[in-house]
Amino acid sequence: MDAAMKKRFVGELKPGDVIDDVFVLYEKVMGQKRDGAAYLNVALSDKTGRIRGVIWENVDRIAPGCTVGDYVRVQGVVSEYKGVSQVVVKTIVRDGSCVDPADFIPVTRRNPDQMFERLKALSETIKKDSLRLLLDRFWRDETFVAAFKTAPAAKQMHHAYLGGLLEHSLSLALLVDRVADHYAGIDRDLLMTGAILHDIGKVREFEYRTRIDYSDEGRLMNHIVIGIALLDEKIASIPEFPPQTALMLRHMIVSHHGTREFGSPEPPKTLDAVLLNYLDEIDSKINGIREFMGRQDPDADWTEYHRPMERFFYKGKSE
Amino acid sequence: MDAAMKKRFVGELKPGDVIDDVFVLYEKVMGQKRDGAAYLNVALSDKTGRIRGVIWENVDRIAPGCTVGDYVRVQGVVSEYKGVSQVVVKTIVRDGSCVDPADFIPVTRRNPDQMFERLKALSETIKKDSLRLLLDRFWRDETFVAAFKTAPAAKQMHHAYLGGLLEHSLSLALLVDRVADHYAGIDRDLLMTGAILHDIGKVREFEYRTRIDYSDEGRLMNHIVIGIALLDEKIASIPEFPPQTALMLRHMIVSHHGTREFGSPEPPKTLDAVLLNYLDEIDSKINGIREFMGRQDPDADWTEYHRPMERFFYKGKSE
Amino acid sequence: MDAAMKKRFVGELKPGDVIDDVFVLYEKVMGQKRDGAAYLNVALSDKTGRIRGVIWENVDRIAPGCTVGDYVRVQGVVSEYKGVSQVVVKTIVRDGSCVDPADFIPVTRRNPDQMFERLKALSETIKKDSLRLLLDRFWRDETFVAAFKTAPAAKQMHHAYLGGLLEHSLSLALLVDRVADHYAGIDRDLLMTGAILHDIGKVREFEYRTRIDYSDEGRLMNHIVIGIALLDEKIASIPEFPPQTALMLRHMIVSHHGTREFGSPEPPKTLDAVLLNYLDEIDSKINGIREFMGRQDPDADWTEYHRPMERFFYKGKSE
Amino acid sequence: MDAAMKKRFVGELKPGDVIDDVFVLYEKVMGQKRDGAAYLNVALSDKTGRIRGVIWENVDRIAPGCTVGDYVRVQGVVSEYKGVSQVVVKTIVRDGSCVDPADFIPVTRRNPDQMFERLKALSETIKKDSLRLLLDRFWRDETFVAAFKTAPAAKQMHHAYLGGLLEHSLSLALLVDRVADHYAGIDRDLLMTGAILHDIGKVREFEYRTRIDYSDEGRLMNHIVIGIALLDEKIASIPEFPPQTALMLRHMIVSHHGTREFGSPEPPKTLDAVLLNYLDEIDSKINGIREFMGRQDPDADWTEYHRPMERFFYKGKSE
Amino acid sequence: MDAAMKKRFVGELKPGDVIDDVFVLYEKVMGQKRDGAAYLNVALSDKTGRIRGVIWENVDRIAPGCTVGDYVRVQGVVSEYKGVSQVVVKTIVRDGSCVDPADFIPVTRRNPDQMFERLKALSETIKKDSLRLLLDRFWRDETFVAAFKTAPAAKQMHHAYLGGLLEHSLSLALLVDRVADHYAGIDRDLLMTGAILHDIGKVREFEYRTRIDYSDEGRLMNHIVIGIALLDEKIASIPEFPPQTALMLRHMIVSHHGTREFGSPEPPKTLDAVLLNYLDEIDSKINGIREFMGRQDPDADWTEYHRPMERFFYKGKSE
Amino acid sequence: MDAAMKKRFVGELKPGDVIDDVFVLYEKVMGQKRDGAAYLNVALSDKTGRIRGVIWENVDRIAPGCTVGDYVRVQGVVSEYKGVSQVVVKTIVRDGSCVDPADFIPVTRRNPDQMFERLKALSETIKKDSLRLLLDRFWRDETFVAAFKTAPAAKQMHHAYLGGLLEHSLSLALLVDRVADHYAGIDRDLLMTGAILHDIGKVREFEYRTRIDYSDEGRLMNHIVIGIALLDEKIASIPEFPPQTALMLRHMIVSHHGTREFGSPEPPKTLDAVLLNYLDEIDSKINGIREFMGRQDPDADWTEYHRPMERFFYKGKSE
Repeated sequence: MDAAMKKRFVGELKPGDVIDDVFVLYEKVMGQKRDGAAYLNVALSDKTGRIRGVIWENVDRIAPGCTVGDYVRVQGVVSEYKGVSQVVVKTIVRDGSCVDPADFIPVTRRNPDQMFERLKALSETIKKDSLRLLLDRFWRDETFVAAFKTAPAAKQMHHAYLGGLLEHSLSLALLVDRVADHYAGIDRDLLMTGAILHDIGKVREFEYRTRIDYSDEGRLMNHIVIGIALLDEKIASIPEFPPQTALMLRHMIVSHHGTREFGSPEPPKTLDAVLLNYLDEIDSKINGIREFMGRQDPDADWTEYHRPMERFFYKGKSE
Repeated sequence: MDAAMKKRFVGELKPGDVIDDVFVLYEKVMGQKRDGAAYLNVALSDKTGRIRGVIWENVDRIAPGCTVGDYVRVQGVVSEYKGVSQVVVKTIVRDGSCVDPADFIPVTRRNPDQMFERLKALSETIKKDSLRLLLDRFWRDETFVAAFKTAPAAKQMHHAYLGGLLEHSLSLALLVDRVADHYAGIDRDLLMTGAILHDIGKVREFEYRTRIDYSDEGRLMNHIVIGIALLDEKIASIPEFPPQTALMLRHMIVSHHGTREFGSPEPPKTLDAVLLNYLDEIDSKINGIREFMGRQDPDADWTEYHRPMERFFYKGKSE
Repeated sequence: MDAAMKKRFVGELKPGDVIDDVFVLYEKVMGQKRDGAAYLNVALSDKTGRIRGVIWENVDRIAPGCTVGDYVRVQGVVSEYKGVSQVVVKTIVRDGSCVDPADFIPVTRRNPDQMFERLKALSETIKKDSLRLLLDRFWRDETFVAAFKTAPAAKQMHHAYLGGLLEHSLSLALLVDRVADHYAGIDRDLLMTGAILHDIGKVREFEYRTRIDYSDEGRLMNHIVIGIALLDEKIASIPEFPPQTALMLRHMIVSHHGTREFGSPEPPKTLDAVLLNYLDEIDSKINGIREFMGRQDPDADWTEYHRPMERFFYKGKSE
Repeated sequence: MDAAMKKRFVGELKPGDVIDDVFVLYEKVMGQKRDGAAYLNVALSDKTGRIRGVIWENVDRIAPGCTVGDYVRVQGVVSEYKGVSQVVVKTIVRDGSCVDPADFIPVTRRNPDQMFERLKALSETIKKDSLRLLLDRFWRDETFVAAFKTAPAAKQMHHAYLGGLLEHSLSLALLVDRVADHYAGIDRDLLMTGAILHDIGKVREFEYRTRIDYSDEGRLMNHIVIGIALLDEKIASIPEFPPQTALMLRHMIVSHHGTREFGSPEPPKTLDAVLLNYLDEIDSKINGIREFMGRQDPDADWTEYHRPMERFFYKGKSE
Repeated sequence: MDAAMKKRFVGELKPGDVIDDVFVLYEKVMGQKRDGAAYLNVALSDKTGRIRGVIWENVDRIAPGCTVGDYVRVQGVVSEYKGVSQVVVKTIVRDGSCVDPADFIPVTRRNPDQMFERLKALSETIKKDSLRLLLDRFWRDETFVAAFKTAPAAKQMHHAYLGGLLEHSLSLALLVDRVADHYAGIDRDLLMTGAILHDIGKVREFEYRTRIDYSDEGRLMNHIVIGIALLDEKIASIPEFPPQTALMLRHMIVSHHGTREFGSPEPPKTLDAVLLNYLDEIDSKINGIREFMGRQDPDADWTEYHRPMERFFYKGKSE
Repeated sequence: MDAAMKKRFVGELKPGDVIDDVFVLYEKVMGQKRDGAAYLNVALSDKTGRIRGVIWENVDRIAPGCTVGDYVRVQGVVSEYKGVSQVVVKTIVRDGSCVDPADFIPVTRRNPDQMFERLKALSETIKKDSLRLLLDRFWRDETFVAAFKTAPAAKQMHHAYLGGLLEHSLSLALLVDRVADHYAGIDRDLLMTGAILHDIGKVREFEYRTRIDYSDEGRLMNHIVIGIALLDEKIASIPEFPPQTALMLRHMIVSHHGTREFGSPEPPKTLDAVLLNYLDEIDSKINGIREFMGRQDPDADWTEYHRPMERFFYKGKSE
């Protein structure tokens, strides 16, 4: 089987299907180990979604060989219950020999290069030299740029696909471009730089080689703390970067989640940081809700219950 | 003394001053009535602020004559403690004979007529006939327009001055104008109408004849419920107003505070209502914080503690 | 099949049963639409309860024809898992040709007409003319009375059956009759009127033609806001209805959920509104708990976990 | 000066008064002890209220002699600020030689003996022998009865005066008498006994010899835990008291505050306990609000802000 | 079958197994009783864990005979779904004729007698006679000691096995031994006694004859209230036990959960009680997390989601 | 006046005193600027405490010259109200010419050099080379050590004096030394290093040149984020520092406040981080309560109300 040959995608699987294909081992949870007869619950994923699976026999022989995140070739049969399909796995072996990574992980529908060019153009509109130079340092760091164009913005809530971080950062920067001069007292240069850099820690908060999940560092540190480290590194590379500007920028990253409950060690205390927090909230929530609505029955006026926001949403028309 | 003759304003009073002037009786709280010797704590206001006062003698003779909200002529002496001045009142009598109302209540620095024209111009940009017609009904209701141009947007937090409601509604509508087409799926006409009408209940939530305070109706009903009644009245006057559009608009008013904790019986459940809530939040908070910063020591980098938002704000520069 | 011929009720279905009968389509949720092979999760209901179902084939052909709330003829087989039965649906077609609505929705065990007469008798005990007249206007509005006698008081928590609104309103009014003169300072007439009218918005908050669910208006407006509109309409029809009395009544409806968290835009601020809130709470909770206890194993001392109230209840005897 | 000779009460004191009279030393807080020159803030009380005082000189000589709760003879002058009077104390000496305790602590306006007889009559209506016998044991315990007739129900919130516990218990029992048979499934005997005994721990939660304050035991144990101990003692004295009945009663006391946040280690889990909690809530809150309203300006429609309930209350009329 | 003959344990059961063995009836929940055809959901347990089961036929004949907590002989077949096995029960009869209790309930891996001796040795290190005597009274009460050595410390969270209470109490006492003299102002004797006795109410909060569950008393009273009663009983048996010491001890038990939200009617108000609360928290949480980690996949760096503590835990190594 | 000549300390000031002395300008808040006549509220401090002051005249001339944190020579008179003294300031000029810094800021009573040596000795007990080396890098950084020995641990709550950070870090390390091997699974080396470094960000979170206050960086970044930066700097200087160890250490700093509400972007997710959080909590709270108790009336059994912990504390003896 060559790289182009993945035959079946998760989204197509129906009860009764016999499968022999490559997936990502998304999750692997051992069953209760009360006696020797362990079993495995797994999740298998590709770019079209996730399916649960279970391995009843020979777990000891199989388990050590496959680690979460691996490409695995799976043979088995699809069964189901209540509309939730699951694969009863017969064999599962590590096999990343000839896969096309693009088959296994969802990706933005927009063009990353074009988005990135647009973001760069926005950074050119910044008048303050130090901030424009700072962004330039990021853009010249090829490793960073590659990660920044590929990373997702979240595991689930909004922009949860490759390129999502860039898409969200660009959308937020464009929103800043519209709103910044509506209020006296706003420093457009700072706000624009903050919008572009606010989520950079996400390039390390997630693992997104074969599937999107939190990295160890992401879970143990939080992207806010990681982002500060990335920012500090670049600032340190610029001779005589104005320390007060550096402090204002750091504060925007530290506070952009708005409250401690949402992970910001300090809440926004400057006008610019307050506005950035609200605009980021708008872009995340509006996109998250639209994506959620898009996954629902197109004929229904109401969505299913949206647990994190604790409500049903109305998709019906206004007349 | 004729209407132009108010001699001293609250903002000028210093300990030691002897006063004989007209104020608004802003507050009147009777002291503990354990024995017959009651006394009165009062607050006196004019457009420059409020000052506390106390009446030690002859309360029984004085109290019945003066009601909160009255213009009162006060004779007394200013004493102080810890930077808080208070008037020891000798005589206080109702006297609204020849006052200039403009002396007694803070007012927007912008021109209400110009603001109103601009808002009307924005309502002309609405394409949907029913919504444009609805706004037209409001604009043709002279009693409403007079109140809408005069009402404050709050007692304390933001836009807490005559004309504040109009100023806030206009600013929000202009923000909608900038942001509405940034996101696919937003109904600009609905959002614009919602922005213009979201706070109309405030024309009855406050009393602002002689000083800004909640009206009985405001405290017992909330401006959200009052706003729905005002909206329903106008909708009822339009034959065959599309009922679905009416429902969407009502929902925007019902939900514009975002959560039940903040007084909305239901949270926003349409994309338009979600966006309206965030933009209203931005306009209220950014203005509230700027007004707060403006009242602080211009030389200090930090404001005093802002109790409702539970933090100090930083006014220092970014470089 | 004629109207009397519904053969099997949800409450009787057992795994293995083959069915061909009419139900209400209670819920319809499309499965993940990753590829063309959509499927449908449904819920089917009648007066004895709800059962889940799943449709694997030909969804496109079936889905557009059936809307939530329709009567549908279903052919299929009952399967089960862990005590939860579900129907594997073979065919499902809209068919309300000859149903007896009483078969499909739970209904109070008490006589609505008798309950209504008793409530009317209680309204006669009100001494204040304006309030007695107001209630009379409601009672003479046949459309309202029909809805008021039919509506449920809730979707799930308490009195969740046709006639439940009337049953709850009557029980609360009788409780007021017992308690009103226990405390000096309570205005029995106001409290009684408030008790009778507090939940009238529920006549439009729910849809209860074929099954009980929230209406669009209910979810977007909340019954408190709807109730105020209904009340205002009747008050407007009475010449010179005392405005202060109107305000007190409106406040009782606005505040009867007690706190903002529970949906009241303002908390109770009059003695009467405070008492109404507590008595409503008692009637809802005591009934909700009794209904919950009634659905449990009669031999067990403890109920299952009651999620909304976060506890197990004890049904055992006191000696 | 003999016992009848207390000349001036706190409620009468005015700035400028020279005093030489007996009060209760209600509070004694030492000022910052940074250097040797300590000073004392005190509060002095009698049945008409409390007044603050300060002792500038010779604190060392004075402080050790007077303990909180003592009767003290005070010489000094009344000064004031912003309507709050305070005594500048010249001398303060312990002196309980000839006081009339009734002068120093607020007391119910109703007749304790009559209230107690009425409560006893209510306990006679209980049909279950064990519960009637249990109450009889309490009524035969003279020490208990004396304390039960004297104790307050609270330090501040409601029934905060001698006899308040009895007044509240009686009012609650009368409310039970009205409501108990409104709902099927309620055990009137249990509910009545629970109502009568629910707060008995308060006989030890407060100290009320010379002023009302929490006792050490009250602060360290809570009246719920104390009440269980008092109940257990009486139950232990009755041979073969039904253990299940004992458990139900204990649960009513344990749970009568409704939630853990309000001090009940477990929430109400029986129908009777749920109802008792609500009725207790009604009696406490309605009385607390009425008492609060009674202390306000009779001419004002609105009370001052009620901090614990976080709102203003409306005392205006309904027409 | 004799007592040693239990053939299969829950931990060994696999889908397809035919069983005929004795278990504890851990849970019994009747299915929806809409018509006569009731069914039963059950849980069966032994020392290796729990398995769900369902009884479809003849429920009426079976249900009355078996009560939760009974030993039952079960015949049936194991089926499964998604890695969760369940028994389809054919027959279930009460049968405790010849069981070995040790087969049915998890138990500490440590030696209870040795742990108890170590705890007694620690109580000997207490210098204050009254406290040492008090502990001695407990140790001489054979019924208490037997229960104290057998009781679990929790149903689920930590030390949820027979002997768990003793294991936790000993661990906490040893921790006190290490920490007590680190801080001036700590009364080691009190703290040690408090540590040993803080959870004694758990001897009656749980039923642990055949499986661990809350007792009626545990659910209705809470172990804190029960613990106070047990303590009071012993204190009453010691002539002239210092009342102040008794109060301090009672306070430690009352407050050891730290806040009202966690079930303590009063929070810790002495230095000793504050420290006891923290040390108890450490011992419960550290053990609970270690037990949770021990039940996870040994190869995975991260545990599953720990719902009560709302996070994933990291088990990976530090280098 | 030379450095030794500060004549009067805040702790000695009494109403009526005339002062002419040097203080720190601790706070400076401009009064309401309604008209030109601004005034200033100030706070003056030295090592014995703070006193409020007010400047009525010539504010414009005085204000620009003095910045918060300056040494200022003040001439004025002490007045008072209710036990709170305040200085009516006549002249205030910047004057740090000849002050002894030790007069102006509270300082630990213990010897910093001895504490530091003890902490260094504890770091020698660490077995893992990388961690011991890391600490060595900190100890060799003289600038860091100087700050670490001088910084306070808080502005108010606990160890709020120079040297407080070191005192708290040492106490915590000693506690770790006692507790670390009580639980299997704890990595003593990591825990000890985490204890020593957990609060290092506080060297920049506070300004403590003339008085203890938050620095701009402290308020805008939080000591947790600053601490990570300091740690990263040292780690970067060590070739091949094990990255996993670095991650574990960073996580301990990130999570040591235990929850997001208290400022940690992520909660503790390793056993070591969980334990560190509890031990830090113990050391902060026990010390904070002891310091609070120490400032109270030594004769009283109860402290005043402790607002942050929402309770009174009991200082009375246990027998």
